[in-house]
Amino acid sequence: MKEVIKYDIAIIGSGPAGMSAAIYAARGGLKPIVFEKGVLGGQITVTQEVENYPGFHKTLSGIELMDEMKKHADKFGTEICEEEVKGVGMQGLCKIIETDKKIYHAKTLIIATGAHPRKLNVPGEDKFYGKGVSYCATCDGFFYRDKVVAVVGGGDSAIEEAMFLTRFVKKVYIIHRRNELRAVQIIQDRAFENPKIEFVWNSEIQEVSGKDFVESITVYNKKEEKHFDLAVDGIFVYVGILPNNELIESRVELDKQGFALVDDSMQTNIPGIFAAGDIVSKKLRQVITAASDGAIAAWSAEKWITIHQENDETDLKTCELPK
Amino acid sequence: MKEVIKYDIAIIGSGPAGMSAAIYAARGGLKPIVFEKGVLGGQITVTQEVENYPGFHKTLSGIELMDEMKKHADKFGTEICEEEVKGVGMQGLCKIIETDKKIYHAKTLIIATGAHPRKLNVPGEDKFYGKGVSYCATCDGFFYRDKVVAVVGGGDSAIEEAMFLTRFVKKVYIIHRRNELRAVQIIQDRAFENPKIEFVWNSEIQEVSGKDFVESITVYNKKEEKHFDLAVDGIFVYVGILPNNELIESRVELDKQGFALVDDSMQTNIPGIFAAGDIVSKKLRQVITAASDGAIAAWSAEKWITIHQENDETDLKTCELPK
Repeated sequence: MKEVIKYDIAIIGSGPAGMSAAIYAARGGLKPIVFEKGVLGGQITVTQEVENYPGFHKTLSGIELMDEMKKHADKFGTEICEEEVKGVGMQGLCKIIETDKKIYHAKTLIIATGAHPRKLNVPGEDKFYGKGVSYCATCDGFFYRDKVVAVVGGGDSAIEEAMFLTRFVKKVYIIHRRNELRAVQIIQDRAFENPKIEFVWNSEIQEVSGKDFVESITVYNKKEEKHFDLAVDGIFVYVGILPNNELIESRVELDKQGFALVDDSMQTNIPGIFAAGDIVSKKLRQVITAASDGAIAAWSAEKWITIHQENDETDLKTCELPK
Repeated sequence: MKEVIKYDIAIIGSGPAGMSAAIYAARGGLKPIVFEKGVLGGQITVTQEVENYPGFHKTLSGIELMDEMKKHADKFGTEICEEEVKGVGMQGLCKIIETDKKIYHAKTLIIATGAHPRKLNVPGEDKFYGKGVSYCATCDGFFYRDKVVAVVGGGDSAIEEAMFLTRFVKKVYIIHRRNELRAVQIIQDRAFENPKIEFVWNSEIQEVSGKDFVESITVYNKKEEKHFDLAVDGIFVYVGILPNNELIESRVELDKQGFALVDDSMQTNIPGIFAAGDIVSKKLRQVITAASDGAIAAWSAEKWITIHQENDETDLKTCELPK
């Protein structure tokens, strides 16, 4: 039988949402544990330059920022567990977290597993990630002043972010595999009016090329069955963002895209299960919004425990911490 | 006639919400202006020790944190205007901001004027602020391990925060002017069960005393018409938080307590007017949640401008920036 270890708050994911939740939980007198199966710090750690987390005005890497957050969580006594969570269950109100090694019981659970962009899966995409390939115009647009970029996609996000990029760049190619957009009409109208935007219809990127940095893309026009190259300094890929919801999809109420629906306490439809960060159904996915979610989730979890822990009608006592 | 100066985004308030909005707006290629009538940095600048803004693991003062945020906004070219906004109006979709000196036109407006705690207005309260007098248990509870504190108030916040404080302190007096609580029943039940909490009914604090730090409070029991002293290391005042909503109360939809109601883009009921930070109707008021609000509001304002600026049916052209 696997060993059972007890916590107030189990946090799955160690990105900005998870770390912020840990800081607030530990500083709030609770015993949190953070599970991380991959790289400590989450998706932001693959980012070379973060310059929009308010207060950190000196540009730093995602790894450096998350190192500061980890030190912050350490300061108040957060336990980090580098095991992969295999399943999440409930025993009454008590949450059961099973990893490949052990079983953990927690009074509350914060899901901060994040999301990841859908990739094009073409040669050069990974090689030039952070060197001209980006999945976030809000994050990286500022680095492309007076440059030429391509945006891939035809939905609301693709077109909105292409419009946003025209505030900086000389020219934006919007490369879309169909001959019409999926974006809402008013956004389409604005894009068609914008002199900096050129549409490349019925087309897909086949390859991303360059030396140290992106220099060109090879495009295939499916209708005309022709390949051609476009000189660009960067590519913004907007073909979807996918929630890392494998652990919760059968249990927690999700939106159409699979992101967790939460109330203003960051609580999901399951009592005592909260969600925070990119996994949440919301408008803007940034380090600052994730960190805010994490703080709210931990604060709410503390209130939830206070209300429920003395209640004999629940099974929360099965996950009471040892005295 | 007053001079008219034009901006993309006018931000009223220079606390964490306003500064974060400025950082996101300026880095997003827009021209923002931040109005501040008082101390640059807002209410947090009166805080001696901030240790829960994720990433800043070395304890710093509110002034130091806001200085970092101001440098961050400066880096991307934010204009700070130390004039007092006297009124806010609309001309079609264009927002008019009138100060004692000038008139400003902006395409969008972010209200980040904050809130302030209702004070007891008793001798010693101001003198010992930050030295034993606090209005935020989430912020300062951690500093009171194994101490004796008093909480003033009888509503949900007062009782919830008293419960929260029992995670750290030896004892909490809840001092309430009536002989029953206003808090919801389940929270009351938990508080009555908690052995660390002692209720002091029908009572008001008359004075806060100490040398360098709070040492005692003088309490007056109205029913028994008696004064007595209690030895405490700290007081947490929870008799209400008041939104700084003077500029918007006639225009923007507010909740019952006077906080601004916003959608998930931080937009109020008025097109192109956003709110961020403590002025917003929400659960948790912290630097991190305010900074997140500001980022979302600025991001949303950019999208709003993109959609509306080319629309001839509106009057937004009257606040177009000079080319």
